[in-house]
Amino acid sequence: MQNTSLQLNQLGQLKHFLDVEGLSKELLTEILDTADSFISVGKQQVKKVPLLRGTTVVNLFFEASTRTRTTFELAAKRLSADVINMNISTSATSKGESLMDMLRNLEAMDADMFVVRHENSGAPHFIAEYVTPNVAVVNAGDGRHAHPTQAMLDMATIRRHKGDFENLSVAIVGDIMHSRVARSQIHALKILGAKEIRLISPETLLPPFIENLGATVYHDMRDGVADVDVVIMLRLQKERMQSALLPSEQEFFNLYGLTETKLKLAKSDAIIMHPGPINRGVEIQSEVADCDRSVILNQVNYGIAVRMAIMSMAMAGQNQSSLSSISDKGGEK
Amino acid sequence: MQNTSLQLNQLGQLKHFLDVEGLSKELLTEILDTADSFISVGKQQVKKVPLLRGTTVVNLFFEASTRTRTTFELAAKRLSADVINMNISTSATSKGESLMDMLRNLEAMDADMFVVRHENSGAPHFIAEYVTPNVAVVNAGDGRHAHPTQAMLDMATIRRHKGDFENLSVAIVGDIMHSRVARSQIHALKILGAKEIRLISPETLLPPFIENLGATVYHDMRDGVADVDVVIMLRLQKERMQSALLPSEQEFFNLYGLTETKLKLAKSDAIIMHPGPINRGVEIQSEVADCDRSVILNQVNYGIAVRMAIMSMAMAGQNQSSLSSISDKGGEK
Amino acid sequence: MQNTSLQLNQLGQLKHFLDVEGLSKELLTEILDTADSFISVGKQQVKKVPLLRGTTVVNLFFEASTRTRTTFELAAKRLSADVINMNISTSATSKGESLMDMLRNLEAMDADMFVVRHENSGAPHFIAEYVTPNVAVVNAGDGRHAHPTQAMLDMATIRRHKGDFENLSVAIVGDIMHSRVARSQIHALKILGAKEIRLISPETLLPPFIENLGATVYHDMRDGVADVDVVIMLRLQKERMQSALLPSEQEFFNLYGLTETKLKLAKSDAIIMHPGPINRGVEIQSEVADCDRSVILNQVNYGIAVRMAIMSMAMAGQNQSSLSSISDKGGEK
Repeated sequence: MQNTSLQLNQLGQLKHFLDVEGLSKELLTEILDTADSFISVGKQQVKKVPLLRGTTVVNLFFEASTRTRTTFELAAKRLSADVINMNISTSATSKGESLMDMLRNLEAMDADMFVVRHENSGAPHFIAEYVTPNVAVVNAGDGRHAHPTQAMLDMATIRRHKGDFENLSVAIVGDIMHSRVARSQIHALKILGAKEIRLISPETLLPPFIENLGATVYHDMRDGVADVDVVIMLRLQKERMQSALLPSEQEFFNLYGLTETKLKLAKSDAIIMHPGPINRGVEIQSEVADCDRSVILNQVNYGIAVRMAIMSMAMAGQNQSSLSSISDKGGEK
Repeated sequence: MQNTSLQLNQLGQLKHFLDVEGLSKELLTEILDTADSFISVGKQQVKKVPLLRGTTVVNLFFEASTRTRTTFELAAKRLSADVINMNISTSATSKGESLMDMLRNLEAMDADMFVVRHENSGAPHFIAEYVTPNVAVVNAGDGRHAHPTQAMLDMATIRRHKGDFENLSVAIVGDIMHSRVARSQIHALKILGAKEIRLISPETLLPPFIENLGATVYHDMRDGVADVDVVIMLRLQKERMQSALLPSEQEFFNLYGLTETKLKLAKSDAIIMHPGPINRGVEIQSEVADCDRSVILNQVNYGIAVRMAIMSMAMAGQNQSSLSSISDKGGEK
Repeated sequence: MQNTSLQLNQLGQLKHFLDVEGLSKELLTEILDTADSFISVGKQQVKKVPLLRGTTVVNLFFEASTRTRTTFELAAKRLSADVINMNISTSATSKGESLMDMLRNLEAMDADMFVVRHENSGAPHFIAEYVTPNVAVVNAGDGRHAHPTQAMLDMATIRRHKGDFENLSVAIVGDIMHSRVARSQIHALKILGAKEIRLISPETLLPPFIENLGATVYHDMRDGVADVDVVIMLRLQKERMQSALLPSEQEFFNLYGLTETKLKLAKSDAIIMHPGPINRGVEIQSEVADCDRSVILNQVNYGIAVRMAIMSMAMAGQNQSSLSSISDKGGEK
């Protein structure tokens, strides 16, 4: 369990947040419980707690994503941290300065946390393990590998609307192969003990050996959504269309789009989720996205609270960890 | 008076600020009085009041304007708000996500205020009415329609230098047709009871039916500025030159540029205003822009205070409004 | 001593920081002492002091530099200031608005400090002298002229690792001619009383009349580094290669790159410095950059503290200066 030891300090507390894989049910539950306490913060007139006051959070986005960056920026500011945004094109770092030198410079400026999005799988792990182990690293999406804060906000949404995971059937629908979100969701659902995970996807959009993850594969969406409690639609990357992995948008919608008709096959109180942004009429019918059972905007709302929880927990665990190592070594760095 | 009901809560307080049209003299005066109290904040060593502490202001600029964005950012920070800047090219939103979905996502992140600049007239109204009515919307300039915070800072400038509006003759000079500033100024001056509003412009740069607004049109600038108390020069959009609505820059300056000679025709204590940025030697002689009677930099200074006033009033009115609707409906959104 | 009178108020306190040239040993020592007190702030869990709370710092970068801008932004935020970042392409200002009008607008918004980087030598001086004398101006690098905050962080690094300057031999190696860093370092070392300053460079990369600065020139690096206490490597601007001032990168490295072999000629406890970003294998061998005697990351760390010191001192001196002039003149501006 390489991830576990990298993510936890010697007391078993989170000090980086890179991946849900390998984390315990207790730890994921602690994140969800902490997030619950932050959801009320967003409803207050003064939406601020002083937990990260005087700490420096650097948003390192090697892949542009205004949306995800904004959620982390808001979460950090509501924790009273100072935030520095850096949008780094990989070409720019290769030109002047190595990525490692740049990160070590930011560490030398006493940065406390890096929120990292990178198009290469494993980049946040590499940074946490080899480059700046004393800076708390939070993975904001790496390649096709993981998007663990998204998965945790999805878990928060399911728990708040459906309660315990043990009796739940959850269907994940769409482009599983290219989705870091799906990968992280499957791990989180397994750890939290979901009764059944169904993956609904055309053969061409399934990764190999997917059954090893403990999920059941469906190619027919009608069979797949039958009697489920939760339907998670994935965003369709339209670029896949060109690469011939997919038929036309219209045909995809007919086969795998969530319509009112198909939704009737799920449980009558099933909730509908989507990580956003939505392609209306491609993976989801517009009316379904906006209906009462859609919790898509709740996901966004809980997303701030979940990120506040993860950031404050990782910072606390990292500080705990540094305190111990300072008492070991002493002296000025 | 559709604007009025959209902008005010059930207690008659501002909850959005979209347009001066339809607002009462009392409300505009309240804005000016509140702004007066903030002007002193800018002179303190600690230029900060905690009125918006813990609230989230999102600057949504669909049309680039570093200058206007900076004034709103400063105003929000001096009110202790957290500020998120989003420069959105309209093409980007059309590609991935509908504008409405993006705004509802920001609302779901518990954003409290949107400061909106958009190239389409009516965009801020549309957002306030149909998209996110519970987020306070401030219009930072929409198409050719309105630029109400600019108009209010102009009114603050006039009142601080000239006192009551009832005895004042105000001349607005230049490209009236394309100016959202002029349109908002005319409404504000009418509401506040200015004695006389003169519009000085070539025929080609006047909108049709302009006389209905209650202003007098002059084509000869010498007649137009005679004995006025206030001369407001408009910025000339140089793009108009190419579209053949205008003669050469030099000819425009000769006919409608404010020179020392023409200024002599106004009252001896007339003040000179301009929304900026100035085109020196096009709409105004450089010496006139910098002379003692120019209050152009005062306008910029009061601009921060006026925006602080509007932002804090709209936030308070919106909160008041939400409180009532929560007690009506109850429950979690 | 034009610089001195421009940089100091009537009490001899710093009110702008434009150049180390002309400042006294006492003042530079005061900066270093103040910086020492801020280094501990970066080690605290709450890395914030309220010295600049409620003041507005505007980063005016006419030349892009994410790295330097980030250090000033962090320094300002740790002093609790509000920071506005403006990246201004010179073409943009020439188009719409003159630079002077733009700066006076920012001053009218009650900005307290401009941090200025500009590709033209003397731009920050011009702003401080003629445009906005009542706004504290800090030079963040102007043309080939000066980079005084970098020089002061270098002095802080030397003093913390080597103690007093009086017994030190310091070698500066590389492209002296194009380096604003070298120019500022030489002045600072002279003022602080360094025993010996050596400039090691090919003839083509030396400015004319360099000996007048009181430094000794070496063309052979082996002679130059012999028995020095401090080796400062300069960054090689690769653009120089094309302009035929330089042989190949490889040949430059052979002649003027810092290798383990050449380093052996310096004192056994000599420290190695570099303003960053490093070109590994061009001006410095990778192993040397990362060895125990390299204090390159310490420079980055002290850089925040030194900028906090300079910013807080200049703000205090400027306020002192304004207080006096207000009591002279009185009234509203």
